[in-house]
Amino acid sequence: MSERPAIVLLSGGLDSSTVLAIARAQGFRPAALTFRYGQRHAVEIEAARRVAAAQGVADHRIADIDLRVFGGSALTADIAVPKGRAEAEMADGHIPVTYVPARNTIMLSFALAFAEVIDAADIFVGVNAVDYSGYPDCRPDYIQAFETMANLATKAAVEGRRLTLHTPLIDLTKADIIRRGLELGVDYAITSTCYDPDPQGRACGQCDSCRLRLKGFADAGLSDPAPYV
Amino acid sequence: MSERPAIVLLSGGLDSSTVLAIARAQGFRPAALTFRYGQRHAVEIEAARRVAAAQGVADHRIADIDLRVFGGSALTADIAVPKGRAEAEMADGHIPVTYVPARNTIMLSFALAFAEVIDAADIFVGVNAVDYSGYPDCRPDYIQAFETMANLATKAAVEGRRLTLHTPLIDLTKADIIRRGLELGVDYAITSTCYDPDPQGRACGQCDSCRLRLKGFADAGLSDPAPYV
Repeated sequence: MSERPAIVLLSGGLDSSTVLAIARAQGFRPAALTFRYGQRHAVEIEAARRVAAAQGVADHRIADIDLRVFGGSALTADIAVPKGRAEAEMADGHIPVTYVPARNTIMLSFALAFAEVIDAADIFVGVNAVDYSGYPDCRPDYIQAFETMANLATKAAVEGRRLTLHTPLIDLTKADIIRRGLELGVDYAITSTCYDPDPQGRACGQCDSCRLRLKGFADAGLSDPAPYV
Repeated sequence: MSERPAIVLLSGGLDSSTVLAIARAQGFRPAALTFRYGQRHAVEIEAARRVAAAQGVADHRIADIDLRVFGGSALTADIAVPKGRAEAEMADGHIPVTYVPARNTIMLSFALAFAEVIDAADIFVGVNAVDYSGYPDCRPDYIQAFETMANLATKAAVEGRRLTLHTPLIDLTKADIIRRGLELGVDYAITSTCYDPDPQGRACGQCDSCRLRLKGFADAGLSDPAPYV
């Protein structure tokens, strides 16, 4: 069987780097898509390039989307990234200020365009409903609704080819994700997850994203190989 | 009753300029959203600015999205725009080369982000299922699926505020749209619909978009006030 193409949304963080390895393990030939969206953590893009190269991705595109035109998030506007929040606070059902309005919808829409252009019928995205920090667009019913919409949106759909949205991490804890990635040979030292890294790309260790990541490694009985300040 | 905010996708063409007037007539305070997406017909953006100004829009944002990263359409890649196609050829169910992959999905996703940021619960878009030239993402079932997805995607949705996607042109012929717009005082002389205008912004008169527009004016017993080459 020849490898089928699949789009993988690759931020360069822990989750998407694991998803990329899972797509390859499932026999897909991944094309990676990374966004430059006016985010503070632009070092993520360099991490995405390292991860794509390390995993032998032949087609990696960087799409520019400037969400600063809308503001509204600590990741794109001039709002402080919260530091040192307790796990209970992250999991209280409130949506944090780091939420970027409609971000997953926008990114998946670009993935849909990319899929259509290279004739891919599969899109992989690293959303997670366990450690999702209260983001509405990480929930399973949202993902299902996006897939339904996507199957009405495109030329491929009109021609009867069904698109599948894969979310292999959706029910995994961070520790599960890390264990799975390590089985597949993911090098987490080159990934970048932090919302507020320093100019050298070292993680802050204090934002929600860092805390969830560090807790994941601790729960798996491991230490994180990535650099911290 | 104070005016509620609504997002209006405004390309500067005939349809979206009419939609803007309809949103205002329905008592909304429209915020307009226009895209600079590497399209050939960038004069559309100037048309959008003129239309927004003429209709008193206080908040008009231009979002950059570079779809050239994917190629795949005569509107964004180096493929010739077809000229002089007969109406039967446009309406034969084939998707034309001017189709931009996932364009409406991407634009509506940005509208969703904008709506979330300014607390709007209404989005207006000028899709049309009658003269839709074979684009899958102009069909009513697609629009309904997008609305369902959007209501699962956002912070507002999580908080129980329902978003409505308005498509006031969906069942209208081009002639109906023009008549409705003229009733509402739309100045079609300042709109731009052509896929391939000259540098002065004058329409070619030969592409699918021009032909549908010219036929609409003819069917309404009117002549188009916009400049042609």
